[in-house]
Amino acid sequence: MNIAILGYGNLGRGVECAVKANADAKLVGVYTRRDPKTVSILTQGVPVRHVDEILEHKDEIDVLIICGGSATDLPKMTPEYAKYFNVIDSFDTHARIPEHFANVDKAAKETGHTALISAGWDPGMFSLNRLYANCVLPKGSDYTFWGKGVSQGHSDAIRRIDGVKDGKQYTIPVEAALEKVRNGENPTLTTREKHTRECFVVAEEGADLERIEKEIKTMPNYFADYDTTVHFISQEELDKNHAGIPHGGFVIRSGNIGWEGENKAIIEYSLKLDSNPEFTASVIVAYARAIARLNKEGSTGCKTVFDIAPAYLSDMSAEDMRAHLL
Amino acid sequence: MNIAILGYGNLGRGVECAVKANADAKLVGVYTRRDPKTVSILTQGVPVRHVDEILEHKDEIDVLIICGGSATDLPKMTPEYAKYFNVIDSFDTHARIPEHFANVDKAAKETGHTALISAGWDPGMFSLNRLYANCVLPKGSDYTFWGKGVSQGHSDAIRRIDGVKDGKQYTIPVEAALEKVRNGENPTLTTREKHTRECFVVAEEGADLERIEKEIKTMPNYFADYDTTVHFISQEELDKNHAGIPHGGFVIRSGNIGWEGENKAIIEYSLKLDSNPEFTASVIVAYARAIARLNKEGSTGCKTVFDIAPAYLSDMSAEDMRAHLL
Repeated sequence: MNIAILGYGNLGRGVECAVKANADAKLVGVYTRRDPKTVSILTQGVPVRHVDEILEHKDEIDVLIICGGSATDLPKMTPEYAKYFNVIDSFDTHARIPEHFANVDKAAKETGHTALISAGWDPGMFSLNRLYANCVLPKGSDYTFWGKGVSQGHSDAIRRIDGVKDGKQYTIPVEAALEKVRNGENPTLTTREKHTRECFVVAEEGADLERIEKEIKTMPNYFADYDTTVHFISQEELDKNHAGIPHGGFVIRSGNIGWEGENKAIIEYSLKLDSNPEFTASVIVAYARAIARLNKEGSTGCKTVFDIAPAYLSDMSAEDMRAHLL
Repeated sequence: MNIAILGYGNLGRGVECAVKANADAKLVGVYTRRDPKTVSILTQGVPVRHVDEILEHKDEIDVLIICGGSATDLPKMTPEYAKYFNVIDSFDTHARIPEHFANVDKAAKETGHTALISAGWDPGMFSLNRLYANCVLPKGSDYTFWGKGVSQGHSDAIRRIDGVKDGKQYTIPVEAALEKVRNGENPTLTTREKHTRECFVVAEEGADLERIEKEIKTMPNYFADYDTTVHFISQEELDKNHAGIPHGGFVIRSGNIGWEGENKAIIEYSLKLDSNPEFTASVIVAYARAIARLNKEGSTGCKTVFDIAPAYLSDMSAEDMRAHLL
């Protein structure tokens, strides 16, 4: 399958790495809104072009992976490019998924393309695990914990504060809450009881640290509902110890089985990722295989991970899968 | 969907419980090879009939769930009943899956039925997680640990020893090995390093305990390759403390992501089950929904969990799934 990447930030670079790891995938182009001369990629011999040229290369591309932001990029880009390409995005604004799905579905169906929205791990692998666990255990409670990992949105929020030069925020699940859930206690957990937030902040010289700390800890939505710790560190320390983008989390369903629900069953799915964007990209490329196949079979329109049989993700034959993985 | 159960042991009873937990499922009959008068079930108003009568009730049954043993029952029963019904079994002899699949597929395709073999948790949910994790992380190592839980086969093996009245065997994953895997160390683990075995044995009066313990610990295939502990206890103790059939386990894929595989990603799926047969049955009933739907859509022949899109397992609408679980 011939893959093209639209947008070359952390996620685009992750897709490039994931394409390399899949023998049946080939990167045929990287498209950017920047001046292509300023973008240097890892793969030798693959062209970097301005996005305005993409339609000229339409026939080379089996699947276009759109690596844009969910706030403003993807709601426009995915429906637009679904008119010309099979597309995948990682749209992650949960509340706006129905609207985004409808727009992409319409564009893809009208033009005979196949699209997948919201691929990655949440939404994505976590959603799949929520669905499977809910089907298997109709009586039960769902828990999702995130972290330990870097939240881009919260790090951005810190950096917008006056007097802050740089900063990074880690979301950390509360171990005691996790243990209660794993023990089948089905606790009702407040926001504060589920996660803590840890901030590493580089302040500008002479800035009022007390004010900055207070502004962070009382910021509505982002920090006010959490137990938040703030550490002021130097830029050198931040660059040295907090350069990565790790993340992960836990999806747990705690259910009851048996005639009167007298027995417990706990299903837990967890991820521990050194690189959030590289893992998200790995999921996307596995689904690119599925999308290329579904399009060849004539199955068009917008899909989600719920609609795609697992076998479509693999480059193994059905016989090999049954013999070696079942 | 109207469900019938063929075979009423632990698994059949589990299916009965799982049907009760799913509002859109209805139990329409239990079929047995025993004298139906000797079989009493939990659901009021549902007939128990001899298996010889099952074809007379063909039209009442959307999906027949075959609860037999993998050694001799299912290889014959599933292909035979796939001629008349949509069927599901939990065939778990991994090495013979290809042959079983071919037999069931032929019978189901020739008669326009839909079948699912090897539903449950291993094979089943564990297989699904092995497949997804392998597709997402093409570079990596797979680890499956079982337990802590009761192994029926090993418990049977103990009970066949001369001088043993009763007994139960627990398979226990080695915590240190699990930790190494979770830390991304990608260890090469021997059989002995992955699991220990703990046996609770009720000996006949005057039996030679030393001989029994030695026979257990040196039994080829079953115990010889493991660190095994043997406890002699009374029948009362066994009945009181070891009556349950708990099980569970862990499927872990430890992979490398990034341009040169420089970053790690660990995917872990785990189950902790008070009742092995009740959970297996819960998986089966979720898939019964999928099999009934696929048959209505004209998709016939034998399937495995790999071939079925997750959405088919749920009684939610596609819109609700996208809005609430994605």
